[in-house]
Amino acid sequence: MFPSLTGRVDLTFVAPETAALETCDVVFFATPHGVAHAQTSALLRAGVRVIDLSADFRLRDTTTWAQWYGQPHGAPECVADAVYGLVEWRRAAIPDARLIAVPGCYPTATSLPLIPLLERGLIDASDIIADAKSGVSGAGRKAVVGVLAAEVGENFQAYAVGGHRHWPEIRQTLDEAAGGPVGLVFQPHLVPMIRGIQVSLYLRPSDFVAGEDAAAQVYEVLDKHYRDEPFVHVLPIGQSPQTASVRGSNGVHIGVAQPPHSSRVTVFSVIDNLVKGAAGQAVQNFNLMTGWPETTALDASALFP
Amino acid sequence: MFPSLTGRVDLTFVAPETAALETCDVVFFATPHGVAHAQTSALLRAGVRVIDLSADFRLRDTTTWAQWYGQPHGAPECVADAVYGLVEWRRAAIPDARLIAVPGCYPTATSLPLIPLLERGLIDASDIIADAKSGVSGAGRKAVVGVLAAEVGENFQAYAVGGHRHWPEIRQTLDEAAGGPVGLVFQPHLVPMIRGIQVSLYLRPSDFVAGEDAAAQVYEVLDKHYRDEPFVHVLPIGQSPQTASVRGSNGVHIGVAQPPHSSRVTVFSVIDNLVKGAAGQAVQNFNLMTGWPETTALDASALFP
Amino acid sequence: MFPSLTGRVDLTFVAPETAALETCDVVFFATPHGVAHAQTSALLRAGVRVIDLSADFRLRDTTTWAQWYGQPHGAPECVADAVYGLVEWRRAAIPDARLIAVPGCYPTATSLPLIPLLERGLIDASDIIADAKSGVSGAGRKAVVGVLAAEVGENFQAYAVGGHRHWPEIRQTLDEAAGGPVGLVFQPHLVPMIRGIQVSLYLRPSDFVAGEDAAAQVYEVLDKHYRDEPFVHVLPIGQSPQTASVRGSNGVHIGVAQPPHSSRVTVFSVIDNLVKGAAGQAVQNFNLMTGWPETTALDASALFP
Amino acid sequence: MFPSLTGRVDLTFVAPETAALETCDVVFFATPHGVAHAQTSALLRAGVRVIDLSADFRLRDTTTWAQWYGQPHGAPECVADAVYGLVEWRRAAIPDARLIAVPGCYPTATSLPLIPLLERGLIDASDIIADAKSGVSGAGRKAVVGVLAAEVGENFQAYAVGGHRHWPEIRQTLDEAAGGPVGLVFQPHLVPMIRGIQVSLYLRPSDFVAGEDAAAQVYEVLDKHYRDEPFVHVLPIGQSPQTASVRGSNGVHIGVAQPPHSSRVTVFSVIDNLVKGAAGQAVQNFNLMTGWPETTALDASALFP
Repeated sequence: MFPSLTGRVDLTFVAPETAALETCDVVFFATPHGVAHAQTSALLRAGVRVIDLSADFRLRDTTTWAQWYGQPHGAPECVADAVYGLVEWRRAAIPDARLIAVPGCYPTATSLPLIPLLERGLIDASDIIADAKSGVSGAGRKAVVGVLAAEVGENFQAYAVGGHRHWPEIRQTLDEAAGGPVGLVFQPHLVPMIRGIQVSLYLRPSDFVAGEDAAAQVYEVLDKHYRDEPFVHVLPIGQSPQTASVRGSNGVHIGVAQPPHSSRVTVFSVIDNLVKGAAGQAVQNFNLMTGWPETTALDASALFP
Repeated sequence: MFPSLTGRVDLTFVAPETAALETCDVVFFATPHGVAHAQTSALLRAGVRVIDLSADFRLRDTTTWAQWYGQPHGAPECVADAVYGLVEWRRAAIPDARLIAVPGCYPTATSLPLIPLLERGLIDASDIIADAKSGVSGAGRKAVVGVLAAEVGENFQAYAVGGHRHWPEIRQTLDEAAGGPVGLVFQPHLVPMIRGIQVSLYLRPSDFVAGEDAAAQVYEVLDKHYRDEPFVHVLPIGQSPQTASVRGSNGVHIGVAQPPHSSRVTVFSVIDNLVKGAAGQAVQNFNLMTGWPETTALDASALFP
Repeated sequence: MFPSLTGRVDLTFVAPETAALETCDVVFFATPHGVAHAQTSALLRAGVRVIDLSADFRLRDTTTWAQWYGQPHGAPECVADAVYGLVEWRRAAIPDARLIAVPGCYPTATSLPLIPLLERGLIDASDIIADAKSGVSGAGRKAVVGVLAAEVGENFQAYAVGGHRHWPEIRQTLDEAAGGPVGLVFQPHLVPMIRGIQVSLYLRPSDFVAGEDAAAQVYEVLDKHYRDEPFVHVLPIGQSPQTASVRGSNGVHIGVAQPPHSSRVTVFSVIDNLVKGAAGQAVQNFNLMTGWPETTALDASALFP
Repeated sequence: MFPSLTGRVDLTFVAPETAALETCDVVFFATPHGVAHAQTSALLRAGVRVIDLSADFRLRDTTTWAQWYGQPHGAPECVADAVYGLVEWRRAAIPDARLIAVPGCYPTATSLPLIPLLERGLIDASDIIADAKSGVSGAGRKAVVGVLAAEVGENFQAYAVGGHRHWPEIRQTLDEAAGGPVGLVFQPHLVPMIRGIQVSLYLRPSDFVAGEDAAAQVYEVLDKHYRDEPFVHVLPIGQSPQTASVRGSNGVHIGVAQPPHSSRVTVFSVIDNLVKGAAGQAVQNFNLMTGWPETTALDASALFP
């Protein structure tokens, strides 16, 4: 399954149902949705802490969850325990968390630049447009015609044009940051590459910041907000972040620009969907939960080129 | 230079300055900007018809041209003769045209779905957002580090975030279709593939169409408007066009969708930037100018996969 | 299934078992192996001519067929009727053929440069090494993990290192060209691209041509042999053919070179595996069978870039 | 130049001519050929140790060097000091070396599997065929049309068909391993990917090992020879190594197979050309020179997918 690990690890795979998970200190679920639902309750009762990389505990509203995932929520009793593991937003709650819902890849890339702007009322919360693009590894390693190399290669398209499961997850975060319901269009696209997510945000500045220097104000707020974060870097204004700059790393790069003759401001963000958008963010949570330095095992530079 | 033409043509390259262009019936310019400026006036006087694939005659305002192309307009005396060769919009003017300005690739993909909507007042003209993505052949065959395979591959980014030369060209078209100045954000991105442009449009329906069936109304207008066009196909509502479907062809595919819980409608379009976005559209103009059937030499299907 | 055909054809798919194939003049099988076995006999009896793109009738030895394809040969009674449709080698037999076995993609690219050299005894038939590389469309459109975009992209490997089904097919051709059993190593590799096959041949010149100008003699024989072929082009000596030069076309490009300080000669060939290696070659056979000009519907230039 | 290093390093670039290199303990040259020639002599006299990643000191024969690099050798006085830094072959000499010539990428991937076989006389040294393939980063970051994304993408070809500069370097190594001049055909190819080299070796077993189990004997020798190496892994016989398994790592994967009905044995190797084929191997040498554990800073797993 993983020839890249030849000579590096001597671990063996075990089926989750038969593994003695209750003897662990922490269990990571990197499973299809529904699996963590089935096992988390017992693990929490046994005193095991759970870091769930699936979507099972990301939405607090179980009705919304059931609607978007097409099956009943399997563990409503655990939802109150779940901490949304977007570390830069929820850092205070993570050390004592018993159950972490690791954010989705698109929600991570989309929410990080928006949270500080909404919290400060800098942008019109009713009119947020997020045009998101992802490499094909976001679809997992399932044998499906749509992600065959001959379909994806030399091709580009929007998908899930009627609504994507990450839309309610992003909305939940933005609603809380804005202190009320936001208006969000979130449209994902498939890029002929393996790793990486880029999001272009088209934002309308609030009345009190609108004008020639709206982009500068947006930039300053983001730069100040994230200056001390180990993984988030706001590029100088007018620079556009590229996914290759964070490939294989836990980094987030954010850029801000002013389109010509427009009252809008554009904000761009990039992550590696398999690291900050999945495994890396899970480890970042684990580090905080267990008292390790936050960057432990996450300090690799991007692989470029 | 072109090993793919081995055994297929026995033409030889000639420098444009020394070629006996005035003996031609029609001259195509596929040259850097400024070259057509230098030669067109004399050719028109000699009775030669000109089809210019460069940007030289796309903007009617020579001041705007000079500002975006960083040099004075070299042939203001020809501007009045230039017909903007977006055939589906300007078909009536093309047969008698002496000078055709072939539209840019992004403007073709962006303007075609917007023109009928603006002409009918179906969308809010003051708030148009176009998120555009292009394969790397859009940058030409120039040796530049930014388009090396090791830079472009496995990478995605927005570029020209402070403004792209195609923005004034698109605005000129949309202003005319709307009958007044529109508000347009146009943001291009670079896709790790060779051919293809995809544009995602985030549109606000006008008050009189807003509501649950706004997408359906947008779809119906587009479908009806383009039903008899040989190259433009409006997909069933809710389908997303992909660039591979028009690769190597002169086709345009357009899709319409309704994002969840949003007052906006999304419209998507795809073209092959080197065919409908360049050479194919030039030939389409030539066919009309010379009385050939419009699809002559343009009836190839897309190369898929 | 094929959005690239939107607006271009109004044909519908029919299951081969229920189609009224016996009313056709010619039937093309582009089916998994075994399907043509089941239906060909009845079609031939009904006077229908068959062009089979699968492997069903490529091998004359039904025991070898059964061994490499893992099932009994389903139509041994038709084998004597089958003409191997490598047009440049078997042109004389094709107009009257009732059953054409269209060659495999690798066999086409590998055999074409070797046949004239073996027929003239120019190379040592006992020591032929063919290192072949193919784009991923050679694997078909089946949902298999090994050809997912995230597996194939940014990756290169040899496969079928214990033997590939095209090895006996190539051997059958070369044995006949050489007039006796040849020694052949054929090793395929998977390239992170969609279309194209390239083969590098490492050949030992026969004693009577060995020496400084062996490559020149190889070049001359190939160039002369293929000079009048519409689809095969031998490049000037020392040039290396590239797959992009034949992408989407029925062309074959061949190159010859002399490695430094070596008694061997290298020969390179490229085809598009989906055209000359499959559908194009099938149409080329059809043209000859039905009396159309050989290049009908096959005169497209390569799509470059 | 390197946006991927944003927020990670605060080093600045300095021109090599003006840097105070003589105050360093060790200087790495990652420069075009000729630069290390100009500066190494003075550095060695100043007691500085040099690790040269360029080709300047790889060939011991300065006449051969001049012939293949098209300019006179600029530092013949240093050649005797140079140790060829193929660690697995020259480990004993490296701790005390003053000047390391880091091997080329192709020579590393090609020589490692061949050295133990030649040293033991297991294969016919007069008839070695190496078909090598490399990602485009092997060409460096120079603006050249041939490595533009639109030329390299969806394309495959052999290059340097008249001889490549790495041929004499590989020959020098193999000659020494074999104890006499070998016969080598080395043919490189360009793969549409960024990182990775794969080499397919077509080898004729020596008379005393020829026969049905030749591949098994080759496998056993390689497996035993490299069993304790931290970076070299010989896969189980019949498995084919893939470049993605070593992407971003200093690993070398080697595979052995037996082609059907052939007296030859095939051996395959893969490396990341930018790590084991360049920077990683340089650091591996540095570690040995300075007494650090050999794997320091080189223990990253491959980045897969």
